[in-house]
Amino acid sequence: MSILYYTLNNSVFTNFAFYSTASIVKLMGMAALTTMKRLSKDAFATPEDRTFARDTTVVVKTDPDVERIRRNHLNDIENIIPFVLVGFFYVTTNPHPDVAYWHFRVFFISRLVHTVCYQMPLPQPGRFIACAVGYLTTLSMALQVLFFARP
Amino acid sequence: MSILYYTLNNSVFTNFAFYSTASIVKLMGMAALTTMKRLSKDAFATPEDRTFARDTTVVVKTDPDVERIRRNHLNDIENIIPFVLVGFFYVTTNPHPDVAYWHFRVFFISRLVHTVCYQMPLPQPGRFIACAVGYLTTLSMALQVLFFARP
Amino acid sequence: MSILYYTLNNSVFTNFAFYSTASIVKLMGMAALTTMKRLSKDAFATPEDRTFARDTTVVVKTDPDVERIRRNHLNDIENIIPFVLVGFFYVTTNPHPDVAYWHFRVFFISRLVHTVCYQMPLPQPGRFIACAVGYLTTLSMALQVLFFARP
Repeated sequence: MSILYYTLNNSVFTNFAFYSTASIVKLMGMAALTTMKRLSKDAFATPEDRTFARDTTVVVKTDPDVERIRRNHLNDIENIIPFVLVGFFYVTTNPHPDVAYWHFRVFFISRLVHTVCYQMPLPQPGRFIACAVGYLTTLSMALQVLFFARP
Repeated sequence: MSILYYTLNNSVFTNFAFYSTASIVKLMGMAALTTMKRLSKDAFATPEDRTFARDTTVVVKTDPDVERIRRNHLNDIENIIPFVLVGFFYVTTNPHPDVAYWHFRVFFISRLVHTVCYQMPLPQPGRFIACAVGYLTTLSMALQVLFFARP
Repeated sequence: MSILYYTLNNSVFTNFAFYSTASIVKLMGMAALTTMKRLSKDAFATPEDRTFARDTTVVVKTDPDVERIRRNHLNDIENIIPFVLVGFFYVTTNPHPDVAYWHFRVFFISRLVHTVCYQMPLPQPGRFIACAVGYLTTLSMALQVLFFARP
């Protein structure tokens, strides 16, 4: 018998869809933050963006606050996108719902904590631990997929 | 009743598959463009790539035209990949076909316009508006997923 | 008739899940490598990371070995994530199983070879060819999706 996993009638998939989309919206928030910080700091990467600058004599400029947001954005890409992709496969391994829910929740919370630690910024190792928790959550799902889908 | 969404018999999914894949091919085109520009400018990031250089005395070099393509590439990653991931969930919310089609078409066109604005380059705010349109399209799908999949 | 493609009963999907997840785990390995290299070289991108440094007088520093791993990581993101996303659509085009298996295997092996070439490093054009093979594998799947899902 084939079971249909990818439907909002499957609570594991629904939960996965919610926390994945929430994580992606958080990731997309970094782009908005970057734009706002670039405007407030007059720090643009591309010459034609001077249109938006108050001081139009500045050509291009890097700014440590902008770069911090950009590193956060890239770290989100490096972690949230693998989580969502591996999660799609993980849902088809028919995991125990409670185990699956906690994977999704822990991952999402780890990324919120990571962002707070990065942008406040809070002293290390807070950010390191938050990142590691999310990383291990994705790895835990990946190992289950590799086991159930082994050729 | 469970409905099977992920099949080419579902016109929303088929449309989504087409515009997502077209967007990803556009994203991958930036890699080819980067390589061509690196070769034409002798601007390589890695010492062993000097094999490809005409002037083999240059070690590594950054070039503004190469960096412009790379920023475009990264912007594609930051926008197209969230669109495709959120779209996978969006398809399962059973959206009205015409609403869904227009989300997919508008997103794809916004990314084409964004690339033209970035690489010509055209004066701002053309590129900013193109990027914002695609961003809001993805957010609109994300809000629908968060509503239908709320725990 | 609608066929259910996304299930571990479908050997094409199972094979795809395995090689995709293995590729993503490889991608995630670059993050661990970056962290280890940053620690061994005292090369941190963010001031508060000095907590982890042996020489805490150094503020932030770029290091060529760290940058090489980071370029490899970004190249994985640029190539592996499009492969997985396009592959999800490709599976629904009902490809011949043997053709599909070889796409997935060749892609995964090309990324392993690419990483070895990059990190040893081996002389070019080894890395270029490995990258191109994976790139063309993804393009081959993408063309099939664009054909079957054309509006």
